[in-house]
Amino acid sequence: MGEFDLIARYFKRPPRHAAVGVGDDCALWQPTPGSQLAISCDMLVQGRHFFADVNPHSLGHKALAVNLSDLAACGAKPLAFTLALALPEVNEPWLADFARGLFELADAFDCELIGGDTTCGPLNICITVFGEVPVVNGRSLALLRSGAKAGDDLYVSGSLGDARLALSVRQGKLTVPVDVLTAARARLDWPAPRVALGLALRGIATAAIDISDGLIGDLGHILESSGVGARVRVDQVVKTIACCAQTTKPKNQAGADLVLEDWRALALCGGDDYELLFTAPPRHRAAVAAAALASQTPVHCIGHIEAGAGLRLVDDQGLALPDHYASFDHFA
Amino acid sequence: MGEFDLIARYFKRPPRHAAVGVGDDCALWQPTPGSQLAISCDMLVQGRHFFADVNPHSLGHKALAVNLSDLAACGAKPLAFTLALALPEVNEPWLADFARGLFELADAFDCELIGGDTTCGPLNICITVFGEVPVVNGRSLALLRSGAKAGDDLYVSGSLGDARLALSVRQGKLTVPVDVLTAARARLDWPAPRVALGLALRGIATAAIDISDGLIGDLGHILESSGVGARVRVDQVVKTIACCAQTTKPKNQAGADLVLEDWRALALCGGDDYELLFTAPPRHRAAVAAAALASQTPVHCIGHIEAGAGLRLVDDQGLALPDHYASFDHFA
Repeated sequence: MGEFDLIARYFKRPPRHAAVGVGDDCALWQPTPGSQLAISCDMLVQGRHFFADVNPHSLGHKALAVNLSDLAACGAKPLAFTLALALPEVNEPWLADFARGLFELADAFDCELIGGDTTCGPLNICITVFGEVPVVNGRSLALLRSGAKAGDDLYVSGSLGDARLALSVRQGKLTVPVDVLTAARARLDWPAPRVALGLALRGIATAAIDISDGLIGDLGHILESSGVGARVRVDQVVKTIACCAQTTKPKNQAGADLVLEDWRALALCGGDDYELLFTAPPRHRAAVAAAALASQTPVHCIGHIEAGAGLRLVDDQGLALPDHYASFDHFA
Repeated sequence: MGEFDLIARYFKRPPRHAAVGVGDDCALWQPTPGSQLAISCDMLVQGRHFFADVNPHSLGHKALAVNLSDLAACGAKPLAFTLALALPEVNEPWLADFARGLFELADAFDCELIGGDTTCGPLNICITVFGEVPVVNGRSLALLRSGAKAGDDLYVSGSLGDARLALSVRQGKLTVPVDVLTAARARLDWPAPRVALGLALRGIATAAIDISDGLIGDLGHILESSGVGARVRVDQVVKTIACCAQTTKPKNQAGADLVLEDWRALALCGGDDYELLFTAPPRHRAAVAAAALASQTPVHCIGHIEAGAGLRLVDDQGLALPDHYASFDHFA
């Protein structure tokens, strides 16, 4: 099967909102008057972002999900995406499953595939996603990293650390009961982009980011962009671990129970969480709660923003904890 | 050097026209009222699109050039692009040269890098480019593949086959004098996207495509999309070969002179040409000539569009030639 047959069979669908979709030199898109386009781009590489034996159905989902998560962090409504795909070979069952995972999620968000590229090479998936944000009275409603203010509350959605738990099991560093592993792997393989929460936080949150490289690293981007610091109640973060923190007994490589320090590391620098980390002033506490309810997304307050630069980790008694956690760096 | 240092050092520049550029979850772009966005995406893979020992300066240029060429074929004005880069290692001199080639071309077209992704993996460069096309009285001025009409003239810009000539020398299939090779390699390594011509052809051309996979294959896309056929005067195409068709004596592997058939194959299915192939009605001949002059781009008429489906190749006496040429397919 050639390149053009492959595109026609698996990826070409009639345009819905695009003026021109897949199949010309360019896609053409007519922007909504008075809106800003939000654009983001993520590349997934075999061996770095997923294992060679990954389920193509979940890979198709995840490749788009991590991009939609960036739109969510910006408060942008998904519109469309391009897909560039390097494939080592044309494996039709694999492609059919990949396309199914991709389009199931795309359709759930009415996000249209409008173009892309297909070539032969080591497996690599590059998606560029487009969303839109209203501009009201000349002011964009986009959620940026740079708007956090001293005194703001610091929130995180959903749960952190579960994806990293699944990864640690896969790497042989942990053992966990099968039901825990199933739940944790669902978080690793089928992340749910927090689009509804991002939209609901427009006009409420002062800054937002999605957590892909671990809470500490991604919080660092907000602090740096906003020129502020933060105090994080670490054990409030640990409590967000959904799969097993409270009820089960994972073991480490040596067969010992995990200790609090292990849980803290999972929650603070897990990575692959795709939850939203955001700030909002205390006067918006009720509005944050209403946004969480409206978007059916759990939200936890885990600390607050301070004027002094730097990140201060404290336990539930307010005692300072050493920060020896590090987030995921793609070149570390 | 980590991922974020790498981006900051080589790829982050202050936004010029973007509301938000590199460094947040999404870039933000305010579209020009009344315009359509043109979006295209190309992925370049080592071993498939370039050799491992490629000059990073020319690779940076070419990675963006092939994308700008898609905008040119659409008649779109370049605005911005995202860059996703998988690198096997952080090689600073390589990155500096790559970024230099990329930004030299970007600056020449005032096309702004607004976001992207950087990760560790087999060398892969994925660029998504954004342009805009005016919409006048509800009608887009974009040049599509689907507008060719029976009776239209068929034109090609610049020269075809030179890049393939350089590739054939590199592959050991041809030998050519050093000055010819230098000129041919410049065409392979430093393609010049025909943006000015594409803009000048708005309202004049009925259909357009850029030639990346060879004239025959890319003409096939116009014919299929437009539901028409074409008659191509092959030796008019051969005459476009700039480097050496008229004046020098390349040799094949066996040491023999190239024959007319070799020249025809180079011109018809060379690939990597990045010239514009377009159609226009005979009443626009003067306007096509004026567009060529205004954009300082040579343009040749090589045939015309016919109602009957299919491609008919003829020599300069009008005699039918067999079509045993094939264009480049990334999975063939």
